[in-house]
Amino acid sequence: MLGSTHGTLTTDSRRARAIACGEQRPGPAVHGRPADVDDLDVSGRPLYADVPDLDRFFRPESVAVIGASDADGRPNTGITRQLIAWAGRVGTRLHPVHPTRESVFGIPCAPSVADLPEQVDLAVLLVADPLPVVEELAEAKVRFAVAFASGFAETGEEGAAAQDRLAAAVRRSGMRLLGPNTNLNAFEEFRDDLDGPAIALITQSGHQGRPVFALQELGVRLSHWAPTGNEADLEAADFLSYFAEQPEVGAIAAYVEGLKDGRSFLLAADRAARRGVPVVAVKVGRTETGSRTAASHTGKLTGADAVVDAAMRQYGVIRVDGLDELQDTAALLARARPPRADGVVVYSISGGTGAHVADLAVSAGLRLPVLSEARQSELHQWIPEYLSVANPVDNGGHPVGDWRGRKIIDAILDDPEVGVLICPITGPFPPLSDRLVRDLVDAAEQTDKLVCVVWGSPVGTEPAYREALLGSSRVATFRTVGNCLTAVRAHLAHHRFVRDYRSPFDEAPRTPSPSFRKARELMRPGQQLSEHAAKQLLRAYGIRVPREQLVTSAAAAVRAAGLVGYPVVMKASGAQLAHKTELGLVKIGLTSAAQVRDAYRELTDIARYEGVSLDGVLVCQMVERGVEMVVGVTHDDLFGPTVTVGLGGVLVEVLRDAAVRVPPFGEDQARDMLGDLRGRALLDGVRGRPPADVDALVEVILRVQRMALELGGELAELDINPLMVLPRGQGAVALDALVVCR
Amino acid sequence: MLGSTHGTLTTDSRRARAIACGEQRPGPAVHGRPADVDDLDVSGRPLYADVPDLDRFFRPESVAVIGASDADGRPNTGITRQLIAWAGRVGTRLHPVHPTRESVFGIPCAPSVADLPEQVDLAVLLVADPLPVVEELAEAKVRFAVAFASGFAETGEEGAAAQDRLAAAVRRSGMRLLGPNTNLNAFEEFRDDLDGPAIALITQSGHQGRPVFALQELGVRLSHWAPTGNEADLEAADFLSYFAEQPEVGAIAAYVEGLKDGRSFLLAADRAARRGVPVVAVKVGRTETGSRTAASHTGKLTGADAVVDAAMRQYGVIRVDGLDELQDTAALLARARPPRADGVVVYSISGGTGAHVADLAVSAGLRLPVLSEARQSELHQWIPEYLSVANPVDNGGHPVGDWRGRKIIDAILDDPEVGVLICPITGPFPPLSDRLVRDLVDAAEQTDKLVCVVWGSPVGTEPAYREALLGSSRVATFRTVGNCLTAVRAHLAHHRFVRDYRSPFDEAPRTPSPSFRKARELMRPGQQLSEHAAKQLLRAYGIRVPREQLVTSAAAAVRAAGLVGYPVVMKASGAQLAHKTELGLVKIGLTSAAQVRDAYRELTDIARYEGVSLDGVLVCQMVERGVEMVVGVTHDDLFGPTVTVGLGGVLVEVLRDAAVRVPPFGEDQARDMLGDLRGRALLDGVRGRPPADVDALVEVILRVQRMALELGGELAELDINPLMVLPRGQGAVALDALVVCR
Repeated sequence: MLGSTHGTLTTDSRRARAIACGEQRPGPAVHGRPADVDDLDVSGRPLYADVPDLDRFFRPESVAVIGASDADGRPNTGITRQLIAWAGRVGTRLHPVHPTRESVFGIPCAPSVADLPEQVDLAVLLVADPLPVVEELAEAKVRFAVAFASGFAETGEEGAAAQDRLAAAVRRSGMRLLGPNTNLNAFEEFRDDLDGPAIALITQSGHQGRPVFALQELGVRLSHWAPTGNEADLEAADFLSYFAEQPEVGAIAAYVEGLKDGRSFLLAADRAARRGVPVVAVKVGRTETGSRTAASHTGKLTGADAVVDAAMRQYGVIRVDGLDELQDTAALLARARPPRADGVVVYSISGGTGAHVADLAVSAGLRLPVLSEARQSELHQWIPEYLSVANPVDNGGHPVGDWRGRKIIDAILDDPEVGVLICPITGPFPPLSDRLVRDLVDAAEQTDKLVCVVWGSPVGTEPAYREALLGSSRVATFRTVGNCLTAVRAHLAHHRFVRDYRSPFDEAPRTPSPSFRKARELMRPGQQLSEHAAKQLLRAYGIRVPREQLVTSAAAAVRAAGLVGYPVVMKASGAQLAHKTELGLVKIGLTSAAQVRDAYRELTDIARYEGVSLDGVLVCQMVERGVEMVVGVTHDDLFGPTVTVGLGGVLVEVLRDAAVRVPPFGEDQARDMLGDLRGRALLDGVRGRPPADVDALVEVILRVQRMALELGGELAELDINPLMVLPRGQGAVALDALVVCR
Repeated sequence: MLGSTHGTLTTDSRRARAIACGEQRPGPAVHGRPADVDDLDVSGRPLYADVPDLDRFFRPESVAVIGASDADGRPNTGITRQLIAWAGRVGTRLHPVHPTRESVFGIPCAPSVADLPEQVDLAVLLVADPLPVVEELAEAKVRFAVAFASGFAETGEEGAAAQDRLAAAVRRSGMRLLGPNTNLNAFEEFRDDLDGPAIALITQSGHQGRPVFALQELGVRLSHWAPTGNEADLEAADFLSYFAEQPEVGAIAAYVEGLKDGRSFLLAADRAARRGVPVVAVKVGRTETGSRTAASHTGKLTGADAVVDAAMRQYGVIRVDGLDELQDTAALLARARPPRADGVVVYSISGGTGAHVADLAVSAGLRLPVLSEARQSELHQWIPEYLSVANPVDNGGHPVGDWRGRKIIDAILDDPEVGVLICPITGPFPPLSDRLVRDLVDAAEQTDKLVCVVWGSPVGTEPAYREALLGSSRVATFRTVGNCLTAVRAHLAHHRFVRDYRSPFDEAPRTPSPSFRKARELMRPGQQLSEHAAKQLLRAYGIRVPREQLVTSAAAAVRAAGLVGYPVVMKASGAQLAHKTELGLVKIGLTSAAQVRDAYRELTDIARYEGVSLDGVLVCQMVERGVEMVVGVTHDDLFGPTVTVGLGGVLVEVLRDAAVRVPPFGEDQARDMLGDLRGRALLDGVRGRPPADVDALVEVILRVQRMALELGGELAELDINPLMVLPRGQGAVALDALVVCR
C-alpha cells in the first residue's frame, strides 16, 4: 500500500517551510540555501534552486567594455557611448579594453582583460566571438559578462553548437553570462524620480519589452530589465527568482518566447509565489505557427501550450496575450495594495456606462455585490432617488460637479463589502470629468482600497488624463474597460492564490514508495505491456482493478468466471495489442458457462485470423455503474512527465475534455483539475444518477502522479481508459490500462 | 408531404431579389417599397420594412425650438444656445417658441407652434411634457420632433404608461419622433474637413457614443449620430436601415442596450447586409446583471443573449464588447476597401514581435500564408539571409532606415496571396520607426490592399503616431494588437458574409404548407400533447417517427409488436406525462410476446401506482444505431419562436452543447448551426462509426422551423428528444417528442 503522496505537514516541516518561504518579506534577501531542504525529488529533479546574487550585475562598481570603440561608423562606437553615459549616471567605473587603442572617448584603454587596473564586476563583450575571452575573464575574476554577439542558437544547428561550447566554457569559469544575442536593455536610463513598488522586467526579445519600459513615461516605476537573449547561461528563471527577492519589486513582468528548462522555471515561479510577488507573463506559442517561429527565433524549446498554461496556473503566474495587457496588469499588480474585500463597484456618471461596464465585469467573473439598503440610502442623500445606486452606482452626472461627488466616492469606498471601485469615464466633459478625476485622485490617496479609472477617450491628450490621472500613483488608470477588468481580476486572483498557496516542492516525495520495487519488476524496457501486466502495475500502486484472471483454455475461462463472479467481461490479452474493441476482441455481459466457452473460442479465432499473438484471455469482473474517466501520463519535452485527467467515452474522444498538471502537485491541484473539465457535472450526478466517488478519483490521480515521478524515466506512456468512478464511497476501478515502457 | 422550405430560386424570383437587394449600391436610396414584395410571412410577421426618409431630420431647412430660453441658469438656455450655434453652422432657420418670451437670444419668439412663420421640418421639444404639443405640431405639419424630457419608460410602470400615450399620439399625428429621454447628439458639431467613407452612429445612451464621436479627433469621419433614447417612435432599426442607404456611410456603429422589436431589427440588419454595409454593435446583456440593469435604464426588453448573438450573426452584424473595439472595428470597416485576398502578412523590425503577433493572429483565426520561395528570394535582396521572411517577415531593423524599407513593403503588398499587411511597431525608435511609418503611409496610398499599423507605445504623443499615422486615411492605425486582429478578422469575415449573403426574407414561406391544416387539428390549446399525438404532429410535417401503435390491452400490444417488428420499445403514453424514463415507464429491447405482455402489465401497474393517467401504451419500433440529437422550438420574448439543435444525451444535459437560430433562415444557416456544436465531430463518425445523415438532420431542422413559423402562435414549446440521426442515406427518426400548445 502506498503512503499518502501529499499528507498533512508535521510541525517541523511546517517550520521548515515557513523559513524556506521567506514569509517575513520584505526582509533581507535569502540567497543561501536552507540547510534542511533536500536536493532532489524521487524523479531526480531538483527541489530547490539557488537564487543567483545579481546585485553586482545590475549595480556593478566597475565595468570593462571588451571591444570598446570610438571610431566613426562602427556599431560598437554607439554602444560604447551609451555605456559611458550610463556609467557616469550610475557612478560606475568604466574601463575600455581594446588590443590596439590607447584610449576610447578619452578614457585610457587596456589592451586585454589581464591588464585591467582592477578586478571588475561586469564585462560587456562587444566582440564577435565571446568564447576566447571567457577564460581570460575568469582568470581576472570578473563576476558577470554580457555578450551581444548574435549568430548562435537563433541561427540553426551550427550556431547552437557554438552556443553549447560557450555555455560549457562559462560553466567551467564560474562566471555568470547574460546572452549571447542580447543588448543594452539592462543598462537603460531608468527614471529615478518615481517611487513606490516597481515593475521588474524580463524579456527574451528586447524590442518586445519596450512598451513596458515606456510605462515610466506614464509614471509607473521600473526597477530592472533583464533581456535574456539566448540564455546560454543565465536564464529567465534566474532573474525571476532574483527579482522576487528584491524589496522594491512589486511585480515581475515577463515576455517569454521559450523556456530553457521547465523545472528551473517552476522553482523560480514557486519562489515568487511563496514571497507573494505577482508574475505577469506573455508566453508566445498559442498556436503552431507562433511556436515554430519562436523556436527559430530564439533556438529554444516551446512546450505544448496547454502544459505551459497549466504550469503557469499551478504557480499563480498570470498569463496574458497582448503587450498592452502585460503593461496594464503588471502596473496594477505592482502598485495596488492587497484587496480588503473582493466586491467591485462600478461607479459612473451615466446609467448606460454603468450597465455596460457592470455587464462586462460580471462576464469577466468579478463579483458586484448589491449595496446594502443603508448604503443606498446614504448615496441617495446626494444622488436623485430615481437613479439606481445598487451597483452599478449611477450618479446622473450633476452631483460630480460639486461637493457631493467626493461624498459619494467616500461612501462607496467606506463599504466593507467593497474592495475595488471602477469608474469608467467614457467621454471627457471637463466641467464634470475634471472634478470627478480630482475627487477620485484625492480619495485614492486616503484609502488603501483600489480605485480604477478607465479613460475612454481615444485621444488621451486631455490634461485630466495626462496630468491628474497619470500623475497619481494611487489611481490605476486604464484606456480600455477590457484591460481594466483583466487587471482587476488578476489582482484579486493573485491575492487569493497567495493566501492559499502551499508549495508542492515542500511536499514532493523524496524517496521511492514501497510500490516502486514491485512496479519496477513489471516494466519491460522498450515494450508495451499486456493489459494484464499494466493492471498489475496499477495494483502495485494501490489503484483498484477489476477481479480478473488470465486464462489459456476455455475450461480455465469457465473456472475463472466462477471465481470472478457472473456477469463477466472477456478480452484478448497480449503485449502490443491495441484497438481491442474495434477488432471484436472484447465480449461483455457474459452470464453463463456456455457463453464464456463460446466467447473464449471466438476471441482466439479472431486473434488467429487477425494474426495477433496473445498471452491469454482475461476473464474480468464486469463493472457498469459509474462515470467513465481517463487518467494518464504523457511526456512533455519541457516539463517531463505530466498527468492528464479527462472525461471518458465520447467526451474525451470528440471534445478532448481533459485537464493536465505538471508534477509535483498536491491534492488541491488534483481537485482543481476536475474543476477544469467542461463535463465536470457528470461527476456530481445528472439525471438522477448518484454522485461519483470524487475522492477516489483524486486519489487515483495522485497515485498516477506518484507513478509518473517514480517510474518517470522508464515510463513512456500510461493510460487508464476507462477508469470507472463508482458512486460516492465505492471507489474507482481501472477497467483497462495501456503502459508503454521506455 | 411538405414542399421545400427553401428551395432553389426561379429566375424571376432571382431578379426580384436583385432589385430588392439594391445591388447597384452606391446609387439612389430606395425609400419606396418594391411592388412585388409580399407583406407578411406565414407567421404574420412583416417581410419588409419601409426605410423612413430621415434626410430632413438630419438636415432640416427650418427648426422650431419649443421651450427655448435665454434666462440665466435654466438648463434650456444652454441647449438653446447650442442649437442656435448649430443652426448657424449648418444654415438652418431657427425659430424659438415660448408662450411669454418676445425673443430668445435676439431671435423673435413665436408664442406657439401655430404661430410659426413657416412650416418647419423639425421641432425640438424642451418642454417637460411633450404630449400636449404633439397635436399642435401635427396640425402645423411638422415632420419630425425630438423630445428631451425624461421620466418615461426608464423610470418604471407609470413612466411606461405615459410613454405609451405619447407613442399613440405620435402614431396618430403622422409625425416621427426621436425620444423621449434623448439629447442633442444628432446636432453635434461634426468635422467637415474629413472625407472618405464615414461612420454613422446609433446609441441608446448618449454618453456611450462619445468615444466613437471622438474618433473624428483621430481623423475618422463621422456622418450621423442618432441617440435614440426611449424609442417611443423612431427606433434603432429605423436609423440602421436609413444609414444603410446613405452613400457616404461606410459602416454603422451601434451601441444597443435593448431592442424595441426583434423583427424590425432583423429587417434593418437584412437591408444593411443586402447593401453590403457593415454594422458593428455593442449589445449590452452578456450577463443577467447587465441585462437587468439595462432594462431598468431604458425600459426596454433585453432578449436572451444567445438568441441576440445568433440573430446578429445571421445578418452579419459584428458584435463586440468594448467601446474601444467598437471604435477600432467600425473605423477599419468604414474605410478599408474590399479585401483582394484573405492572406495576412505580419511585418516587423523584430523577429520577436513578428512571432508574437503571428501567434496571436493565427489564434484569432487569420490565415498567414507562407510566402512563395520566389517572394522570399525577392525579400532577401534587402533583408539578410539569416532572417526569416516566410511570414512573419522580420527585417532585422536596418533595412527600414533606408530605401530598402519601401521596397520590402511593396514586394509584400504585390503578392497576390496577400490582402492585409499588419505592421506592429512595438516601441517608437525615431531613426527607424519614423521612416517605417512614412513608407507605410506612402505605400498605403498606392495600393488598395489593407495596411494596418499597431502603434505599441502606451504614450501616444509621438509625432509619427499623431501626425503621420493618424493623418493618413489609408492606414488603419491601432493601439493594441488585440483590437487590430479583431478588426481585421471582422473586415475579412464581413466581405465573405456579404459575398455569400442570401436574404432569408426573400425565401421565407408566405402561405401555409399543406401540412398546416392537418397539424392544426392535432393542437389542443393550453395542453401538452401525448407522445403519440406529438409524433402525429411531426408526421404531418414529414418528420419520420418510428413505426408504432397505441394500444390499450396486453393482447393488442402483442399484436402491435408483431406488426411493428421485434425488438420493440414500449412506453406509457399520456398527455402531461414527462420524465417517463425516471419513472420506469419505458421498456426497451423487448424480443418476445411474453416480454411484451409482461411489459404491458408492468407499465400500467407503475402508472396506476404513480397516479398517472394514460391514453394507452405505445409499442414502437426500436431504433438503435445513430447519433442522438435534440431539435426544438423555444419562444423568445424579443424574436418570437426560435429553433434549437443540440447533441443529445449527456452532451446536451451536461454541456448544453446547442445552437439556436431565429427564423426565417435557410438551409445554409441550418448547416451552420451544426458547425456551432462543439461535439459536431460525432456526426462525422468517430471510432469507426459511420457518418450520420446530416442532410436528413438539416431537413428536420428546416421542417421544425416551418412548424415554428406556421404554428408559432399556438405552439408554446416543441422538443424532439432524441432525434436519432441514422447513418448517411438512412434518414433521421424522432424517437420521442414533447409538444406544449399555447
